[in-house]
Amino acid sequence: MKTNEKMDSGHTLRAVGIIRSSIKEPFLKPDETGIRVEDRLEEIKKHIHEIKETRCRIIIDPERTALLKGIESYSHLVVLYWAHQVPEANRSIDQVHPMGRKEIPRVGIFCTSSPVRPNPVLTTVVRLVARRGNTLEVTGLDAVDKSPVIDIKPYVRNFYPEENIQIPEWMTRLIAEMNP
Amino acid sequence: MKTNEKMDSGHTLRAVGIIRSSIKEPFLKPDETGIRVEDRLEEIKKHIHEIKETRCRIIIDPERTALLKGIESYSHLVVLYWAHQVPEANRSIDQVHPMGRKEIPRVGIFCTSSPVRPNPVLTTVVRLVARRGNTLEVTGLDAVDKSPVIDIKPYVRNFYPEENIQIPEWMTRLIAEMNP
Repeated sequence: MKTNEKMDSGHTLRAVGIIRSSIKEPFLKPDETGIRVEDRLEEIKKHIHEIKETRCRIIIDPERTALLKGIESYSHLVVLYWAHQVPEANRSIDQVHPMGRKEIPRVGIFCTSSPVRPNPVLTTVVRLVARRGNTLEVTGLDAVDKSPVIDIKPYVRNFYPEENIQIPEWMTRLIAEMNP
Repeated sequence: MKTNEKMDSGHTLRAVGIIRSSIKEPFLKPDETGIRVEDRLEEIKKHIHEIKETRCRIIIDPERTALLKGIESYSHLVVLYWAHQVPEANRSIDQVHPMGRKEIPRVGIFCTSSPVRPNPVLTTVVRLVARRGNTLEVTGLDAVDKSPVIDIKPYVRNFYPEENIQIPEWMTRLIAEMNP
C-alpha cells in the first residue's frame, strides 16, 4: 500500500500564525537515536510547572483575524502547531524511550507525546487569558518560540471521554513523577 | 507579518496510513458559503449515534508498523487525519454558521469543529477495540472513508483540564440537541 499516493499536492500545511514564547528551545532535545533527557528530572518538573502559569502569545495572520470571531466565549482552546525544531531526518524514527528514559523500554512513537513524529504536529490544550485583535494570550502552551500555528479548535469537554480510560503502566508512573 | 515564510519546504504532511470506514461522504457538505446541513436534524442525530458504535479500521503503512509498538495498552487514542474531501478553495473561508445552522450567527472557524479549516487537520478521540499487525480497529471515528492518517497520539486524561471550562451558549445548545 502506498499511503503517500493519497497525499497529493493539495495536502500542504500553511501557517495561520506564529507562537511567541519565552521557551527558546525544546527541553527534550532530539538526537540521532530519538530523544534524550537533556536536564535532570528536577529541572524538567520545574519547567512543566512554569509552563502552566507562563503566558505566551498566539499571533494570527492579520489578514485572517476573522477566524477568531467569537473565540472569547471559550475558556480553553486546542492549539495545533508544527514542531519546527525537529530535524527532518527524525520524521523517520519509529520508536523512542518515553521522555528519553532509558530504563523504560522503547515504544512506538504513537504511544508517546514525543515531538519526534512522522508528522510533527503537536496539540496542546491551553487556557485563553485574553484576546487583543489578532493576538491570543494563553497559558499552558509548551511550544517553542516561533512555532508555526496550524489550527486552533474549541476545547469542549463533551468531545473527550471520561470513563474506562486505560493507559500503560509506564505512562501512569511518568505522570505521577511529573505531578507530585 | 508573512506567516507562510515560517512554513518552508520541510513542512509537508506525509500520510502514515489510511482510514477505511463505511462513511463514504461527509454528513455536513461544504458548499461555496461554508457548510450547510444536508440532512434533517433527526438524520444527523442518528448518524452521530451510529458513529459511536460503528467500527472502522486505521491501516498504517506496513513499513512503519513499529510506530504502533505497545499501543494495545491504551483504551483510547487521538487520531489526526486530513479532511481530503474538503475542496482546496474552502481553506480560505474564515467564518461559518455552526453546523450550517443559519439561525446561529456566523463565528470564526476556530470556534467550530467544521472540517472547513485553513488546514483541514481533524482530530477525534477513538476507542481502540483491537490491533492486528498494522491495523487498528476503532469506534467513534467520524472520518470519511480513505481519509489519510497524519498522526496518532495517546489519549491521557491528565492532558485535558476538567475544571472551569467555558463554552459559548450556542455550543451548549447544539450539544444538548445532539445528545438528548
